[in-house]
Amino acid sequence: MASVTDDSNNNKIMKNILFDFISKYVSLTDDEKNAIVSLDIFRSFKKGTALLKEGQNSKDGYFVLKGCIRTYYVIDGDEKTTAFYTEMEGLTPHCVINKAPSEYFISCVEDTILTVANPDMEVEIFSKFPKFETLCRILSEELLAKQQIDFDEFKTSSPEQRYLNLLQIRPDLVQRVPQHQLASYLGIKPQSLSRLRARIFEKSKSKVSFLNLSERD
Amino acid sequence: MASVTDDSNNNKIMKNILFDFISKYVSLTDDEKNAIVSLDIFRSFKKGTALLKEGQNSKDGYFVLKGCIRTYYVIDGDEKTTAFYTEMEGLTPHCVINKAPSEYFISCVEDTILTVANPDMEVEIFSKFPKFETLCRILSEELLAKQQIDFDEFKTSSPEQRYLNLLQIRPDLVQRVPQHQLASYLGIKPQSLSRLRARIFEKSKSKVSFLNLSERD
Repeated sequence: MASVTDDSNNNKIMKNILFDFISKYVSLTDDEKNAIVSLDIFRSFKKGTALLKEGQNSKDGYFVLKGCIRTYYVIDGDEKTTAFYTEMEGLTPHCVINKAPSEYFISCVEDTILTVANPDMEVEIFSKFPKFETLCRILSEELLAKQQIDFDEFKTSSPEQRYLNLLQIRPDLVQRVPQHQLASYLGIKPQSLSRLRARIFEKSKSKVSFLNLSERD
Repeated sequence: MASVTDDSNNNKIMKNILFDFISKYVSLTDDEKNAIVSLDIFRSFKKGTALLKEGQNSKDGYFVLKGCIRTYYVIDGDEKTTAFYTEMEGLTPHCVINKAPSEYFISCVEDTILTVANPDMEVEIFSKFPKFETLCRILSEELLAKQQIDFDEFKTSSPEQRYLNLLQIRPDLVQRVPQHQLASYLGIKPQSLSRLRARIFEKSKSKVSFLNLSERD
């Protein structure tokens, strides 16, 4: 079990990670940093924890400081993973914006540390520190543009291209998450992902053999 | 050709459409309304106009007051339509956020009236009227959550389900845009969309016959 000292050390590290991230967008005064700390938004969750279930109402938005969470649907008894969020990625679930029961589940793929905040907190802190509203606007605009490109990429590429693209832009994810979740995230069946991986491995092996032969020549 | 009176009438109508839309989120004073008008952001475009080309840099974000625009990629010589934006929908292209050449094209599917604004205008108007920053934050958060659900829906459904869903949530779109653009937007081949439409039409016909028979019984 973690000791009090461990917890307070962890909290300090997490605060610094968050402040470092924010400083890329806006500079914070000590007053503004203290206002964030006073919100008491740091939360630790064990791997497998359900943060939100289909049909639940929630006001909580998440920002990942450490670990990985995923969103998934249960369709005809099967889980369909639609997104993963890792370090420095945030998610405000649709049900928070829509004020309606959630369409999907959110759970922790790993032991995870998050900031958990709700719109009531935002209203309060935005009125005191308008800079935080600027920060949230910029982050939302960035996320929106990035998600749009991800969506376009998904629509315009084959499963193999999607997987190769993922290997290039989020290589850590391929290692961190279970293969059946990754397959459904890529919109393919687990056995198709296995075949895809085998084919790519074979290709890379023959490339290496070719390079070795060329070097020998 | 439109006369000056027509233009000024049109401008008045467009302003009111925009103010009505904004009033759902924040209430505007006359000063704030005048500030928007003074930005001179209303623009009319003919059907087919290219607003942005792949490889171009741009600072322009769009909000559709009337008409329809689409984003598309050209891949191996083929156009792949990824999104349509109609009345009261906005788009800040990735290249504006990313400050890099655009990955895609934007063009007008119909004669279209847009607001065209750039980040420099935003900085100026946000400093004078912080309410506009609140508006942009709320809109971005809403769009982000909506786009996330659209992406999830695309990943978790079959082409037939996607088409049926589109018929339900955006029936106007199915009538307004060319079928080959609609097919690529749904991630299917034009001939598959034709077959799909025929199948759905047959199903609905047999449902009607069945209902007629039942009524006769």
